[in-house]
Amino acid sequence: MRYITGAVALGAALVLGTLATTAQAVAAPAQPARTGGLYAPSELVLTMGQGDSRATATVQRAVTLTCMPKSGGSHPNAIAACDQLRTVAGDFSAVTAAPSQRLCTKEWAPVVVTADGVWQGKRVSYTYTFANPCTMTDGRGSVFDF
Amino acid sequence: MRYITGAVALGAALVLGTLATTAQAVAAPAQPARTGGLYAPSELVLTMGQGDSRATATVQRAVTLTCMPKSGGSHPNAIAACDQLRTVAGDFSAVTAAPSQRLCTKEWAPVVVTADGVWQGKRVSYTYTFANPCTMTDGRGSVFDF
Repeated sequence: MRYITGAVALGAALVLGTLATTAQAVAAPAQPARTGGLYAPSELVLTMGQGDSRATATVQRAVTLTCMPKSGGSHPNAIAACDQLRTVAGDFSAVTAAPSQRLCTKEWAPVVVTADGVWQGKRVSYTYTFANPCTMTDGRGSVFDF
Repeated sequence: MRYITGAVALGAALVLGTLATTAQAVAAPAQPARTGGLYAPSELVLTMGQGDSRATATVQRAVTLTCMPKSGGSHPNAIAACDQLRTVAGDFSAVTAAPSQRLCTKEWAPVVVTADGVWQGKRVSYTYTFANPCTMTDGRGSVFDF
């Protein structure tokens, strides 16, 4: 009787094992959907290039900027750049339209800056053309100073 | 005669000095144009979100990826992602179109992945919609596995 109970138990274990294996085989392909993190992402690529439009300007320099959870990326001054963007709530036009703080020559040697990516979960695609490199870095802070 | 020559020389020096000062005053605002680096930049922002188009999908996750001069960024596996992109010469469609390597369910729960920025100096703006999260990570390597 002891022997029979053992055999039944073994059989049940085998059946359960097979069921478990089958369940695994079916469930495996459906990955658990990863949710977003604890915060909305802020990840950007900033570029600058000589030319007068995004389509034609050759990209000369490009950096990444991560502002959440902490400031980072290949931007040379990520902390100041993120602080500046937070101040204007990610509004890049407020960065490029800042009032001039010194004299610049007026020649036309256009420089295009672009910003693409995500700011606090919202997509960003921004383009601005400065008349020349002087006006680009003329008191406009750290965002496009790379 | 010696005295006169000296005075003339002094006068000429003063004039030259004034000219030089004037030239400096004019030239100063024109910053030396920074050139590109030693290599073409490769800086990207990758995003994923649930939805069926770039315009409507909410960004759930976003990472930066820098592939030059060395692999980095907030991508969790930047080295493998850059290696994969180098293998396909930055062609994101080759990443998303890789053949399926396991079984996925077929339900429609679309996921949009995007890539924006610069790959080896060329602008990139790529969007692809996967039918569901399983197909997104189905043997397609590290690029969109974040």
